[in-house]
Amino acid sequence: MLLKLDSPKLLSDVVGIISELVTEVRIKVNPNGLSVIAIDPANVALVSFLLPKTAFSNFEVNKEEILGINLDSLKNVLRRSSIGSNLVLQTQDTNLRIEIHDKIKRVFNLALINIEQEEKQMPSLEFTCQIEMPSLDLSEAIEDCSVVADSCSFSVQEGKFIIEAKGLHSTKSEFSGDEAKISGEKGKGKYSLEYLQKFIKACKLTDKAIINFAEDYPLKLEFPGGNFNLAFVLAPRVETED
Amino acid sequence: MLLKLDSPKLLSDVVGIISELVTEVRIKVNPNGLSVIAIDPANVALVSFLLPKTAFSNFEVNKEEILGINLDSLKNVLRRSSIGSNLVLQTQDTNLRIEIHDKIKRVFNLALINIEQEEKQMPSLEFTCQIEMPSLDLSEAIEDCSVVADSCSFSVQEGKFIIEAKGLHSTKSEFSGDEAKISGEKGKGKYSLEYLQKFIKACKLTDKAIINFAEDYPLKLEFPGGNFNLAFVLAPRVETED
Amino acid sequence: MLLKLDSPKLLSDVVGIISELVTEVRIKVNPNGLSVIAIDPANVALVSFLLPKTAFSNFEVNKEEILGINLDSLKNVLRRSSIGSNLVLQTQDTNLRIEIHDKIKRVFNLALINIEQEEKQMPSLEFTCQIEMPSLDLSEAIEDCSVVADSCSFSVQEGKFIIEAKGLHSTKSEFSGDEAKISGEKGKGKYSLEYLQKFIKACKLTDKAIINFAEDYPLKLEFPGGNFNLAFVLAPRVETED
Repeated sequence: MLLKLDSPKLLSDVVGIISELVTEVRIKVNPNGLSVIAIDPANVALVSFLLPKTAFSNFEVNKEEILGINLDSLKNVLRRSSIGSNLVLQTQDTNLRIEIHDKIKRVFNLALINIEQEEKQMPSLEFTCQIEMPSLDLSEAIEDCSVVADSCSFSVQEGKFIIEAKGLHSTKSEFSGDEAKISGEKGKGKYSLEYLQKFIKACKLTDKAIINFAEDYPLKLEFPGGNFNLAFVLAPRVETED
Repeated sequence: MLLKLDSPKLLSDVVGIISELVTEVRIKVNPNGLSVIAIDPANVALVSFLLPKTAFSNFEVNKEEILGINLDSLKNVLRRSSIGSNLVLQTQDTNLRIEIHDKIKRVFNLALINIEQEEKQMPSLEFTCQIEMPSLDLSEAIEDCSVVADSCSFSVQEGKFIIEAKGLHSTKSEFSGDEAKISGEKGKGKYSLEYLQKFIKACKLTDKAIINFAEDYPLKLEFPGGNFNLAFVLAPRVETED
Repeated sequence: MLLKLDSPKLLSDVVGIISELVTEVRIKVNPNGLSVIAIDPANVALVSFLLPKTAFSNFEVNKEEILGINLDSLKNVLRRSSIGSNLVLQTQDTNLRIEIHDKIKRVFNLALINIEQEEKQMPSLEFTCQIEMPSLDLSEAIEDCSVVADSCSFSVQEGKFIIEAKGLHSTKSEFSGDEAKISGEKGKGKYSLEYLQKFIKACKLTDKAIINFAEDYPLKLEFPGGNFNLAFVLAPRVETED
């Protein structure tokens, strides 16, 4: 395989975000593009990332290859690229060869690792509520919640989308139909802010976020980019008290 | 009560500064405005802050209310506002309700706490020296002293105002009548730099600082803003050696 | 002695860089200028700095003086100067008196210390390879290596200058004759990245860096400024395996 990427900033940012959830991943490269599906060690969150063939300026892939990668190492290498750099990725023996073409050509060889895991799939889920809103507004509401608690709830009530959190103190953000595209009538899910705060780092990558949830059911948070797709699934916090 | 503030940055900054001295305070709201007088746990420093009625764009207060507040919590909420935000403060049962009006309206409820303390008063003090100077120059001189020692002295000598500190190394800044408005003839007080460094964070809020002191006597540091008043009182360090 | 320096930023930066290698140094002031030669406590690196007489706007030195200085203290004082400041250095009894002339004149007295060490000399070394290149390119290549290992090697191979590092992962930067002025035919030296990363902080001070090395032999890294000279010597890492 030989992949060429003209602006590596997106890949570098996404790898940085995923590396906060999992340390070792299987990166799949096949004729459709480059993709990652991984589950965090606590089995609470799943991340799915697809960078399609069309995102690359050169994409030579004959057969599917699975690359076992330590994400911290990959992150550190990608950070060495700058905005104007080009990136060339190739497999070579047991290495991923990464060329950074800047003023000077630099080469990194990342040792591939053997990851003893079955392939993950995006679970098939059915949600009762879907919200499409500016990713920045979502990010602000999540950060508000982090000030008062370690979990927050998403709900639709009377046509409004509500994000709220309660601890000793409490907070609430309401979004009307003018501020978000709201589908679904009822439903309330409670989710860990520790994970949500990691996910919303992706808010800088896309203008829009799509939030899918249902009563006491997993959350799916999608960041649909022009030429990539990044999504997270998070198990609900089901608490008997409350 | 209902208080509306059009630019919450000043309140946010002041709460941040006071929160480094005390964690829980009684905020008094009466028809004159909002005020705080608090003493740090070590009983070494007092802070006094007044935000008068005229600083608010809406000020509906019928009777005096005392709000027991955890300053870290309040600071974290106020930091969620941005420069263009409006703030609406209301008491509601045992909460302080804080609305941040931005693009989206967000609501926080801060639990009020019971503070078992008598009301503090600004002590009545008589100083022999008063210096009025640019707050930035004061800040620089205090930072200079912090490089060499953990306390510094303020003195007036031969018409000059002198800030100096001595450890293994020493430093000295002199201000003539051109650089500061100097009243008083003699007097030298020694004060803890740990506290002074916390106080001078207020130098960014006002152009001018007023320093009042006397021989082995408390210091009073005033930051007179256009529409607020912030002042600190600090006990002297009286040392037998020296 | 009385030395006056119109822009103290360079001295402040250099003192900061040297202070990461040694804590106490003998600063020599003689009619030629101000100079430091020091060896780090592990005896692995030597630093040499010369600020010639012509770099000062006033330079009154009758006889050689040796100033024993704690570099952290000097660094902290120099950092209190700003870009437009002037600096006046004088010896006074057992102190180095440092005046910072800003809007306000500030005086620091640094206690001189007694350093029981013989005078260091720049060792006389003969190198087989010399590379002259943009200091920024060197800095980037060193930082690349730090991502994968704790030492890197410099070599000349077939007219190219190569910087590479190998751990579990590896990296390599190649510089042709277009990108660097390369003298010497063969030779490969391996050096500690911990030290090199400290040295390359000097890359911001000069456009050009000169790298001298030979097979399993010390490295000399020079940063020739318009009006100063800063150089480092580093012992090689000679390893039996590899």
